[in-house]
Order: sequence, then structure tokens, then C-alpha cells
Amino acid sequence: MAATKPSTLKGTRDLGPEMMLKRNFIFEVIKEVFKKFGFLQIETPSMEKLEVLTGKYGEEGDQLIFKVLNSGEKVKKADLEALKNEEYSKFATSVSEKALRYDLTVPFARFVAMNHMELAMPFKRFQIQPVWRADRPQKGRYQEFFQCDADVVGTEYLLCEAEVILMISEVFEKLKIEDYTIKINNRKILTGLAEVLQCQSQQSDLFVAIDKLDKLDLTTVLKGLKERNFSQIQMDVIEKFVSSESLDTIAELLTLSKEAQLGISEITEVKEILTQYGYDAKYLEYDPKLARGLSYYTGCIFEVKINNVTMGSVSGGGRYNNLTEVFGLLNMPGIGFSFGVDRIFDVMEELHLFPKFGSESTQVLITNFDQVCFNKSLPLLNKLREKNIKSELYPISDKIKKQFNYANKKGIAYVLVAGSDEFEKNCFILKHMESGTQEELSINQILEKLS
Amino acid sequence: MAATKPSTLKGTRDLGPEMMLKRNFIFEVIKEVFKKFGFLQIETPSMEKLEVLTGKYGEEGDQLIFKVLNSGEKVKKADLEALKNEEYSKFATSVSEKALRYDLTVPFARFVAMNHMELAMPFKRFQIQPVWRADRPQKGRYQEFFQCDADVVGTEYLLCEAEVILMISEVFEKLKIEDYTIKINNRKILTGLAEVLQCQSQQSDLFVAIDKLDKLDLTTVLKGLKERNFSQIQMDVIEKFVSSESLDTIAELLTLSKEAQLGISEITEVKEILTQYGYDAKYLEYDPKLARGLSYYTGCIFEVKINNVTMGSVSGGGRYNNLTEVFGLLNMPGIGFSFGVDRIFDVMEELHLFPKFGSESTQVLITNFDQVCFNKSLPLLNKLREKNIKSELYPISDKIKKQFNYANKKGIAYVLVAGSDEFEKNCFILKHMESGTQEELSINQILEKLS
Repeated sequence: MAATKPSTLKGTRDLGPEMMLKRNFIFEVIKEVFKKFGFLQIETPSMEKLEVLTGKYGEEGDQLIFKVLNSGEKVKKADLEALKNEEYSKFATSVSEKALRYDLTVPFARFVAMNHMELAMPFKRFQIQPVWRADRPQKGRYQEFFQCDADVVGTEYLLCEAEVILMISEVFEKLKIEDYTIKINNRKILTGLAEVLQCQSQQSDLFVAIDKLDKLDLTTVLKGLKERNFSQIQMDVIEKFVSSESLDTIAELLTLSKEAQLGISEITEVKEILTQYGYDAKYLEYDPKLARGLSYYTGCIFEVKINNVTMGSVSGGGRYNNLTEVFGLLNMPGIGFSFGVDRIFDVMEELHLFPKFGSESTQVLITNFDQVCFNKSLPLLNKLREKNIKSELYPISDKIKKQFNYANKKGIAYVLVAGSDEFEKNCFILKHMESGTQEELSINQILEKLS
Repeated sequence: MAATKPSTLKGTRDLGPEMMLKRNFIFEVIKEVFKKFGFLQIETPSMEKLEVLTGKYGEEGDQLIFKVLNSGEKVKKADLEALKNEEYSKFATSVSEKALRYDLTVPFARFVAMNHMELAMPFKRFQIQPVWRADRPQKGRYQEFFQCDADVVGTEYLLCEAEVILMISEVFEKLKIEDYTIKINNRKILTGLAEVLQCQSQQSDLFVAIDKLDKLDLTTVLKGLKERNFSQIQMDVIEKFVSSESLDTIAELLTLSKEAQLGISEITEVKEILTQYGYDAKYLEYDPKLARGLSYYTGCIFEVKINNVTMGSVSGGGRYNNLTEVFGLLNMPGIGFSFGVDRIFDVMEELHLFPKFGSESTQVLITNFDQVCFNKSLPLLNKLREKNIKSELYPISDKIKKQFNYANKKGIAYVLVAGSDEFEKNCFILKHMESGTQEELSINQILEKLS
């Protein structure tokens, strides 16, 4: 067989040992915070029935769902007519019944709809799993990336909103990320804006346009709205709206909309809960331009940006009141948010925020001089491991320099030199690799020192 | 939108909070052992280029690889001629460039081929990730399941083989699985058998037939071989071979094959290393019928069966000397094995081997009587969490019975009753849910008691 030059798919990456330690460090911090706030972990399958996922993420989202090809004969059902008519999405559905999850929220909604009778309500769950999106890869955008989600379902109470902010702040504090902003808005305010503009039928166009303001300037966005037949009067209100910096200004602007007033009072109440809790709200910022892409949000929405780095949002979420409805379960309001771990990882690399990890590698390497020493070293190795000391015996009697190089490269803390002299004296040289210091010790002294 | 009755795909399953604790318990045990033996963790992407995976698992394996449909317009290249001719595999390749990993070994070989210059050799890695196979679901066979692999590449030395057995034994000891058998064989012995039978061209037929002997009886298997033109003399030797119980008998039977003698001496040496190490080999059993399905093995092979349960093998692996060759990297011998965690999970459930997990759930639930108490409870909640006590405030002033039910259902250890009387006295009732006992304590006493 001809050799394939090996490579990974664009938008995916391997994690070597060092990257794994860093990534797992982030996971551990997030997990600890989630658990402290009373969240329990679940997992759902990577693949879901296609119909579970489609129609939940808007048209654009649907196109980014990776579909899994039917196996064997099942591709017979291919809709060739659709292919001919360039209806690629229809064709895809004819040869695919399964898809890779696009986020953790929709599979969670499916899980809740199936299991709500057995769950302690309100149900607080967290979930740490990869998701897949057929997005064009670029900095901070992978086709496979890990999300860490926490959601509460079964209550509308705003303590949950406040706790989202508390958890985000606590995670960032533990990760030593100091310069960030938690943006908050409320979908009800945006709905209220559409009411006031009397453009409810074009509401999603409006939301999408506003959402684009973090990438495009106002003139471009307004031009786009004009093309969609928004009037000058409407655009003037939109301009005032997105330039407002305080909830008071918005309250005045949208005074005619009860929905908007409700959204405003929700944000105010969340802030009051935070104050009562003792939270310093310096990271929290009301942003009228925050809209969030997904269509299922109904109340408070959040997004977190790390300042002074070129990276999209690293966390986001919001309240949804009807997400389980499509799975036949009514009245199950929820709220959740997600950490984008791969982006947080990249930012922490850029800002050199990772601590030094030492203890994860092997603690002791026993040298291998020859067959006789090797045989005598085996019981030593056993003794070290019985004391839970991470240890290895170099598998072959290579040059001793090569063995030390191995220890260095792998970040092994100690090398235990076990040659024939040492076995005769029953006393071994233990070399500390970083400092270069060495001691002569009996095996019991070594066990005591290292355990 | 009409409600979809939600369900998971056959062969996949959700893990609720309790199952997660159990599954993570198995992971932690395996990780701890892998690390103790000097293995470092890596991860590879779920999706690989199709050509990275195909041709590595035999024809049957290739058909079980889940292919990911090309996105958008890229399905245009559909090979309709192949579809018409019922060449489904060819058709699939025309609309798919990516596939879900089938195991962790081939992606690891790809990783080594790409990164070998940076790795400390011999490189010992472990990897814990899901894999996907389009297999017919049945007991213990899922379409998505977790593998926990440990591999060493860059050395041929047999210490690695011995350490595979040590790691398996240590994991099972920690999981309290007591009745199991580690079967060992060597591909060189099987190759030697083919030599002696002078049927090298039909070697893979022979291996597949022998491998089937754990499911089919000898007569059926021999019948199959007869249909593939094996002679009576050949079949007599095969019958003797598979009925042999000791390496000595095999050595005699295959005395003419140097390859077989080498395989036998490898097993013998592995056993000697184990003895030297101080390992009681009671779980180890030579099995001439063990062949392993995958084609890449070249030396010792292993498989682990838990006795007295109806479940296929829960762990397996072996030595491969040429796996990175297809990726252009020569001379990179390796050995590895894998734990099938989902099967181990199912067996441990069946045998009631999981310990009781208590501490993972919330420790304290603060009650919520009314808005005033709620506001006063927020700083209490903050104090508890500052002491790293997992705690929650019930989000709404529901009936108190409902709040206690919630605590019970979620396995919360304590309920902190915080009504207006309690705030007045600055003294709270702390109820231990399992025993039913309760104490009146100040918040500082509570913090001290619980942290």
C-alpha cells in the first residue's frame, strides 16, 4: 500500500500530552464551579436522529450540521431528483438519518423531554462534550470543539440568571482571566423594539442585523435593513436604540412596549439579586446590540468577551422558555450557558495564563544497564508502584545518555540509577533532574522520600 | 411545528447523573493506573480523513466505519453510476471525505507519524475517547462506545507486553472484578501454523476461522475451512493445534516453524518478566484459539473475558510492528490495548460492583420561604460557596414539602431551614436528610461543620 502523507482535517486538531494537561485544567476549574453551584453531570450521544437537530438553529445553523451517511444499502434511497435540481439539503436528508450534535442544548432538551418524570426539578445539569459544526475554519473557530454547558430547567426564577453570571465570574477568576466583559441583554427588549417599530413580521431580520453590529459598522447594517424595506423612521429608532448605553434611555425609547419594560425589569432584578449576594458587578455590562444568533431565546441573554485579544465570544447563553415543546413537553422553561473551551484555551496560551504542570508526568525512571540489572530492577519497580509512585523502567539497555535524555524530554522528576554496583551495595543513586543534585539512598529511603 | 416524539438512536444511550458518576469512577481508576505506569494522555479528533481510516480494519471493519456526508454543494460529486451498479461503498466515498474514528489505534498511528520527532521515545500514551461503529446493536454492543487505550511505540522490548498484563490486573483489582481471564497468544505462532500447513496464501481465512471458535463449535469451523479447500490433513493439524492446552504441545506440533518458536519464546519471556516483577500469574492463560480480528497485529495478542457473565471481551490488544508504515513512518514498532468501558460498566452493574457515591451531589439546600427570606439567604449562600461547600438556594418560594422532596430526590445531604424566625434569632435549623436529625446552629457553626 502506498504511504498516505498523514494529516488532520482542517478545523480539527490533535492534543498532545502538554495541551491535554492545559485543556483538562480548564475542564477541572469549570467542573468544580458547576458542582459548587449544585449542577450534576450528564452526557448525551454524539449522534442524534436528524430530525432531533434540524429546525432548531435557524436556516444558517441547519446547514452547518454534519450529517452521517447511511450505512451499506441504505443509501439506495438517494433522492436523485433533488440532486439534479440542486436541492442539496433535500438530497442529503435522503441518504442520511443521523447527525452529529451541533450544540449541547438541543440534545439536553431532548433528554429532558424523555426523562423529566425521573428528574429532581428544577433540574440543574452540566455537560462537557465536543460539538461539531461545518463552519469555515479560522482563528478560534474549529469544526470540532468542546462546549461546557450548565442549564437549569423547570423554573423561571431569575436567581438562575444571576447564578450564570456568578459562575462565569468564578471560573474566570480561577483561570486568572482578569480583563473581560459579561454582556447582558434581554430578548423581550428586542421583541419590544420590533413592536414599537411595528415590524414583528421582520423580527428575525432585525435581530440578525443587530447581532451583526459587533462585526460590521452601523452604516453597513442600516444599509442592509434599508434593502429589506425598513423605513427611515424605523432606522432612526434602531440607531437610537443601539447607541443607548443605559437601561433608562431604552426604557424611555420603548415606553410603549410592555414586553420591553418586562425585559428591562428582569435585567434590573438580576442585578439586585447579584448585589444582595455580594457580587461586585464590575464585569457586567448592558449591551443593547447583543442579540445572539439562536432563535430559541426568550429572556435574558449573555455573552462574554475577553478584552484586548482578537477572539470572538468565549461564553454565551440565555433563557429559553419553549425549547422542549418541539419534543412534546410543555411548560419547561430553562436557562443555560456554555463555555467555549477551545477559545478559552487559545486565549490563555496567548496571555500565558497556564500554571506550570509538573506532577502529571512520571516521577521516577529506573535506568536499564543490562539484562541482569533489568531483572533485579523489576521488583524495585513493583515496590515504587505499590506506593502509588508513577514510575517506569527504561525498556531496553540503551546508552545511558539516551535514557537520561528520555527523562528530560518527558519531564520525569527523578532518575534512579540502578547498575550492578548499586545492587551490590543495595544503595541507589537518585538524581533530581531539574536541580541536577543526587543522593545515595536505600530503596526504603527512596520510597519514603517520594511517596 | 408538530412535536417529535423524542428518542435516541439505537445503539446509543444517554448517561444521567448517576450513570455518569459510575462511568467516571471507571475512567478515574483506569487513568490512575495508566499514569502510574508512565503513560501520558492525548486526544485526537473524532473525524479523520476517510483515507486515514479505510483499509486498516479489514473489509468487514471498513463497512462499519461511519462516514460523514460532504456539506452543501460538495455532494454534487455523487457517483451515480456506482449507485446504479449497487457499488454502495464506492458511492459513499464519492459523497464523503470524512469519517468517525473506528478505534483509537489508527488515529494514534497517524498522530505518531505526524509528531514522532517531538515525542520522547519510547512514547507511552493513553487515550480515552468514544469510537463509533455501524454494528448491529445488541447486549454490550453499542454504536458509540468509549475506549480507554494505552500504547507504547518506539520499542520492541517485551517489558511492554508484561506491563499490559500488569495494568489490566491492577485496573480489575481496583474495580473489584475478581473472576476474569487474560488470554494470551502470539500472532507468530499462528503465522507458524500457516507455514507448517503450507497455506500462507490463505492465512487470513485461517486466522478468521480460528478466531470464530469462541462463538462457533469446532465442527462448524472445520466445515467452513473445508469449503475453502483446506485438506483433511491440514484440518487434523488445526484440530490438534486448537485443542492444545500448553505451549509445550504447540512447540512440538510446530517444531518446523522458526516463526512459531519465536512466538512461543516471546510468551515465555513475558511470563518470566512477570514472575520477576512479583506478579501472580493466576489470571493469565495461554489460548491457542485467540487470533483477534484486526489485521495489524504481529506479536503477542491479548483478550480479557470476565467469567460467568454473558458479555464479549472487555479488553484486548497486542503488538503491531508496521502500523505507522501506511503513514510513511517505518521502524516504529508498538504495542497497545484497550478497555471497553461500556461493557465493563454493564458488567459492574450486573454484578453490583459500584461503590456508593454520596458526596458528588449538593451538600446544602437553603429553603426559600418568601421574598424577604430569599434576599437574606443570598449572602448565606455566598458564604457557603466561599468555603467551597456545594450549595443551592431553592429558586422559588414553593411549598416547603416540595423543597424537601427536591433535596431527597437529588440526594442533597443537608437542608438549611432559613425562615423569618431563624433570621431573627440568627440561628438556623440544619437537617441531615438521611438520618432525619436536626440541629440549631449559627451560620459560622454551619460553615465549620460542613467545610
